[in-house]
Amino acid sequence: MGLLVVGSIALDSVITPFGETADALGGAAVFFAMAGAVLHPVQVVGVVGSDFPEAHLKALAARGVDLAGVERQTGESFRWKARYSYDLNSRETLETRLGVFADFRPRIPEQFRKARFVFLGNIDPELQLSVLDQVQDPTLVACDTMNYWIQLKRDVLLELLRHIDILMVNDSEARELSGDWNIYRAARWILSRGPKMAVIKQGEHGALLVDADTTFKVPAYPLQEVFDPTGAGDAFAGGFMAHVARTGDLSFANLRRAMVYGSAMGSLAVEAFGVQRLEQVALPEVRARVRAFRDLVHFALDGEDE
Amino acid sequence: MGLLVVGSIALDSVITPFGETADALGGAAVFFAMAGAVLHPVQVVGVVGSDFPEAHLKALAARGVDLAGVERQTGESFRWKARYSYDLNSRETLETRLGVFADFRPRIPEQFRKARFVFLGNIDPELQLSVLDQVQDPTLVACDTMNYWIQLKRDVLLELLRHIDILMVNDSEARELSGDWNIYRAARWILSRGPKMAVIKQGEHGALLVDADTTFKVPAYPLQEVFDPTGAGDAFAGGFMAHVARTGDLSFANLRRAMVYGSAMGSLAVEAFGVQRLEQVALPEVRARVRAFRDLVHFALDGEDE
Repeated sequence: MGLLVVGSIALDSVITPFGETADALGGAAVFFAMAGAVLHPVQVVGVVGSDFPEAHLKALAARGVDLAGVERQTGESFRWKARYSYDLNSRETLETRLGVFADFRPRIPEQFRKARFVFLGNIDPELQLSVLDQVQDPTLVACDTMNYWIQLKRDVLLELLRHIDILMVNDSEARELSGDWNIYRAARWILSRGPKMAVIKQGEHGALLVDADTTFKVPAYPLQEVFDPTGAGDAFAGGFMAHVARTGDLSFANLRRAMVYGSAMGSLAVEAFGVQRLEQVALPEVRARVRAFRDLVHFALDGEDE
Repeated sequence: MGLLVVGSIALDSVITPFGETADALGGAAVFFAMAGAVLHPVQVVGVVGSDFPEAHLKALAARGVDLAGVERQTGESFRWKARYSYDLNSRETLETRLGVFADFRPRIPEQFRKARFVFLGNIDPELQLSVLDQVQDPTLVACDTMNYWIQLKRDVLLELLRHIDILMVNDSEARELSGDWNIYRAARWILSRGPKMAVIKQGEHGALLVDADTTFKVPAYPLQEVFDPTGAGDAFAGGFMAHVARTGDLSFANLRRAMVYGSAMGSLAVEAFGVQRLEQVALPEVRARVRAFRDLVHFALDGEDE
């Protein structure tokens, strides 16, 4: 069952207390695909410039990512440069050069249009809507966004919410969108605007899945060393959606597992710069981390409690 | 098996966005005892002034709290006044009047000295050490502290760490004490100084239990309304220690349950001003919340994952 992601493909330059990278493979669609492909084939729609290294695309193809939807256009690739604080909890964007990404108009190749599972990475909500016009009745559509669109294109974003199943955003975005600082009320507000579920990413504090009836929480994995938080949210989304696509099971029990697969991928992503760790990780290692999440949070009630 | 708490008994005046209280029953030992007493009898050692309302002490006695260790001294009771921010995530202390608490010297009554379980609330670490001199070989000693003592009495505090089983502090205190911003490394540092376990309270992000081999995480309960965060950490400690005292079981599986009982008590505490909610709550309601925590975090592996 096809899994499609539409989003940015970038050259990232990142400075952390542990080192720096220049023009490394990055972007939301890339982190999503690198993480998801460990579990299930991923189809990517995006754009790169004439300067985009062929080796980067080969790295994705080597993971079984289908790049038939990646257009190469004349001009510069999307470049993003940022510096993280000493504790990695905040970052400063030093430079954003959109290049060919400024005029990105997603065109979904014929063979991708029947994808059952669709992830709309963080792009202009008008473009996200245009993707939904091109795909044929997918089973599950999840969507990311950012503060920029919440402020500048709120009406289009609200229209988009009526057509998606899961809004997958970070906590500050959920707060800004809903106007409510309580994250559980913010999630309820999101559900009231259309999506069946809200997934709220909370960085070092994990992630929440909220639907009409229940709330499920996965804490972050206890890492003593984090090297580069870039792309953790998109790696999470890739793990989540690929687990659902692989199993084809939309039960809440399985969506809980998807949350844990997403969290496992997010935690692996931050253990090295860029996609380095995701590029190498094998399925048994991912499964071992999923079991480690169980050990982290599970407890047994005693007889009295039941 | 006796459960002893030594700590402050106060008159709290608290302003939140939802209202305010004046001279309400408060203090670390009080929140601990009110929460713990739902599960197991609690013995309190503390001091009150001549102005301390008899009705407040009766409220504790009505919960089965043993007040034989509460001295009444001539002078003013300990008063604390604070205002919380609109989102309750920060607070400003408006006034601290130590009164008779300034000269508090814990005297453990004869009948409390065989307590198997001891909680040293946040007081001068020299006084915490003096309590350990007075009790007879307890099974489990847990201890709180605060930034003030970490800065002013670091050496005494480090000496104290050699004599306790669990250090139970919030994340900023763990960071300050260890000098490490990574909370998992900070916990390891604490273990290296003596305690067998570190419990790190993370406020709206839950709590961690770390020992030499494992890490256990309980997220915070998803509350859409929080009225007053005062005392949540001490209510947590009360629930944790009282569960251990009630069961007498120090296995890691049972300490995980203790973490959940603590979290349940902390989440109940913040649902009303001061001790109002803890004062009323019955055991079945606490057990229901413990089960709700299980529903919040548990997930089943599928066949492939095992």
